[in-house]
Amino acid sequence: MRYGIAIFPSKKIQDEANSYRKRYDPHYALIPPHITMKEAFEADEEEIENKIIPELKRIAKDTDPFSIAIYKASTFSPVTNTIYLKVENSEEIASLNEKLHSENLPGAKEFSFVPHITIAQKLSDEEFSDVHGSLSMLKFDLHDTIDRFQLLYQLENGAWSVYETFRLGQEEQ
Amino acid sequence: MRYGIAIFPSKKIQDEANSYRKRYDPHYALIPPHITMKEAFEADEEEIENKIIPELKRIAKDTDPFSIAIYKASTFSPVTNTIYLKVENSEEIASLNEKLHSENLPGAKEFSFVPHITIAQKLSDEEFSDVHGSLSMLKFDLHDTIDRFQLLYQLENGAWSVYETFRLGQEEQ
Repeated sequence: MRYGIAIFPSKKIQDEANSYRKRYDPHYALIPPHITMKEAFEADEEEIENKIIPELKRIAKDTDPFSIAIYKASTFSPVTNTIYLKVENSEEIASLNEKLHSENLPGAKEFSFVPHITIAQKLSDEEFSDVHGSLSMLKFDLHDTIDRFQLLYQLENGAWSVYETFRLGQEEQ
Repeated sequence: MRYGIAIFPSKKIQDEANSYRKRYDPHYALIPPHITMKEAFEADEEEIENKIIPELKRIAKDTDPFSIAIYKASTFSPVTNTIYLKVENSEEIASLNEKLHSENLPGAKEFSFVPHITIAQKLSDEEFSDVHGSLSMLKFDLHDTIDRFQLLYQLENGAWSVYETFRLGQEEQ
């Protein structure tokens, strides 16, 4: 099965992202707005239960909740014409990303980590220039505390279903 | 915020349900196939964190994983024209539903509990009779072990985002 790891920010940020995704992102219906922390990787259920989940629990326990901030939209153009809410890079989110690509977990890190929430993708060149023109002018002032990440798996229709939540920091009880 | 509690069955069952939902369920894009364990209720974040989540943890710990079986599709007609995969009722799932409606949790139980996975809803009368005619002939033989439930919240666009997963039974570590 195909698994991935994502952070879902607060409802406020998800609602804001969805106001753009609705028009500009064909993946709008497949998954709520998210920060991809680990790209899709293949694993079987036995490996997920016995190896990957225990490792993710260790990582979560070993990571304190951290803040994120979003001030603007940006793009991966010319590599792809994806437009995203740029999550300001920080030591904390970069470090969590590093841990999620340790040798104890499957899935290679193919790109350097640019924390982001996609709001537009798979646009035609013309659409891209229109949409990018207007989104790149916008200023945002969004803040959130991240205290969990989620392990998801992909259904046959391309949608993602959450398998498990991992709370950052020590368990309270 | 509006919260709800659902069980997401295995990928196999979700894929099967989606093959019908794609055509017949306008909520297809809002949430993956699920068994609603507690209808939408209002709560604020403080209440969720300090009261509801600790109670859900206790309930999860106090509930052993259980099996479900699906043999046929059924309908709530004439109350609504919803068509669903009928999850065979069992003491285990009924008991979990009861616990999720204890007085320590908000949200009243308005209907008697009929465990199900919706595959068609909001059809016109004509569509309903066509679709029900064909789906009611089908035999299914789907089995799954349920070992978790999820707390979700609803975004402004109507989609549901998972807030936390609760594993049934004792924590292994």
